Amino acid sequence: MTPDETSPKALAGISAARKVRSGMVVGLGTGSTAAYAIEELGRRIDEEGLRIRGVPTSEMTARLARKVGIPLTRLDKEPVLDLAIDGADQVDRRLNLVKGGWGAHTREKIVASASRRFVVVADPSKLSPVLRMPVPLEVLPMAVAPVLRALKKMGARGRIRAGTTTDQGNPIIDADFGVIRRPDLLDRRLSEMVGVVDHGIFPARMVAEVHVGTHGGVRILRRRQ
Amino acid sequence: MTPDETSPKALAGISAARKVRSGMVVGLGTGSTAAYAIEELGRRIDEEGLRIRGVPTSEMTARLARKVGIPLTRLDKEPVLDLAIDGADQVDRRLNLVKGGWGAHTREKIVASASRRFVVVADPSKLSPVLRMPVPLEVLPMAVAPVLRALKKMGARGRIRAGTTTDQGNPIIDADFGVIRRPDLLDRRLSEMVGVVDHGIFPARMVAEVHVGTHGGVRILRRRQ
Repeated sequence: MTPDETSPKALAGISAARKVRSGMVVGLGTGSTAAYAIEELGRRIDEEGLRIRGVPTSEMTARLARKVGIPLTRLDKEPVLDLAIDGADQVDRRLNLVKGGWGAHTREKIVASASRRFVVVADPSKLSPVLRMPVPLEVLPMAVAPVLRALKKMGARGRIRAGTTTDQGNPIIDADFGVIRRPDLLDRRLSEMVGVVDHGIFPARMVAEVHVGTHGGVRILRRRQ
Repeated sequence: MTPDETSPKALAGISAARKVRSGMVVGLGTGSTAAYAIEELGRRIDEEGLRIRGVPTSEMTARLARKVGIPLTRLDKEPVLDLAIDGADQVDRRLNLVKGGWGAHTREKIVASASRRFVVVADPSKLSPVLRMPVPLEVLPMAVAPVLRALKKMGARGRIRAGTTTDQGNPIIDADFGVIRRPDLLDRRLSEMVGVVDHGIFPARMVAEVHVGTHGGVRILRRRQ
């Protein structure tokens, strides 16, 4: 075992990968913690004969999955996934998430929504009593200026993320709302904003559990029903 | 005057173009009725010295606007438009619309939303007590199967529009809900559907007035406040 495999991120990823059973179709998230889950799935395929197929949320993840030997499929063949595993940039105490540091949040949200269970992996630095980090918005190119204007009217500061686009080729705006008191309402408001393809608020109703790796082990948070 | 210029569509387009004043930035819609408005604006530029700039909602409209001599601009330079003129595929008695027969509804909705006043042009065949035609959805390619599944759960029939994509390169699903009793609720539900870039329901709150050409003249419908 390399030292890395006892890090909080690694423990969270390995813990989530334990939820996977043979025969499942699994959504594969993007980012460093999800990568540990993907590597663990690769190990289980190799050493335990686990049989699964994966749906990747980004080109980067597709490459990693191929490397570790996870057969890939697509939502047009498998529109319902058994489980999706993905990281988060911030998790509040009700299990609302902000995602999208990697600019893959639209594909991540499609995959999470298509899954019967969405399992989030995180280290303790991602936990916050309330969401307060900027929310990434994937925006159609022609809508960037109107969306920046609409954000300003809402009292938010929007910044175009320089030098990057999503896998769909669209620009990303990071929208800083300060403390987000009602993620459920902001989710709806951003979804209804014309020209926004999707946004990085994942409301708690999408989340089944959050696996938080710590130096002592893994804590699993479940949503109060 | 050619016979065409007294057709209901022509009368509606010409009537809407009368709302335009020098100095305005004008959203230019897509389709046969909006085309009459664009041609009339071109005539007014030529014959009356009207000075405007236009923001087109499709490549097709951009070509027509150039042809008739309307200088074009973009939302990133002019995020607020004074007026937008566009057609509709169906208009109900509260002035909710279904749009998108041309597959341009996302750009059309961005332009309409960015406008202080949105003026709709139609002929009487577009009026219906209730919306009942299929609603076009622009969908990210990887979300087509999950969206078709979600529509089925809602009791709607979804069909992929064959051989065509939007100007953004995305597929279109025509979703048949039968009679749409609550366009306001369907608007919200479709906006929140993950993987749907935008959809063809334009709720009445977006619409300032509807110019309906008839064989006898033009009837202007305004929303009850």
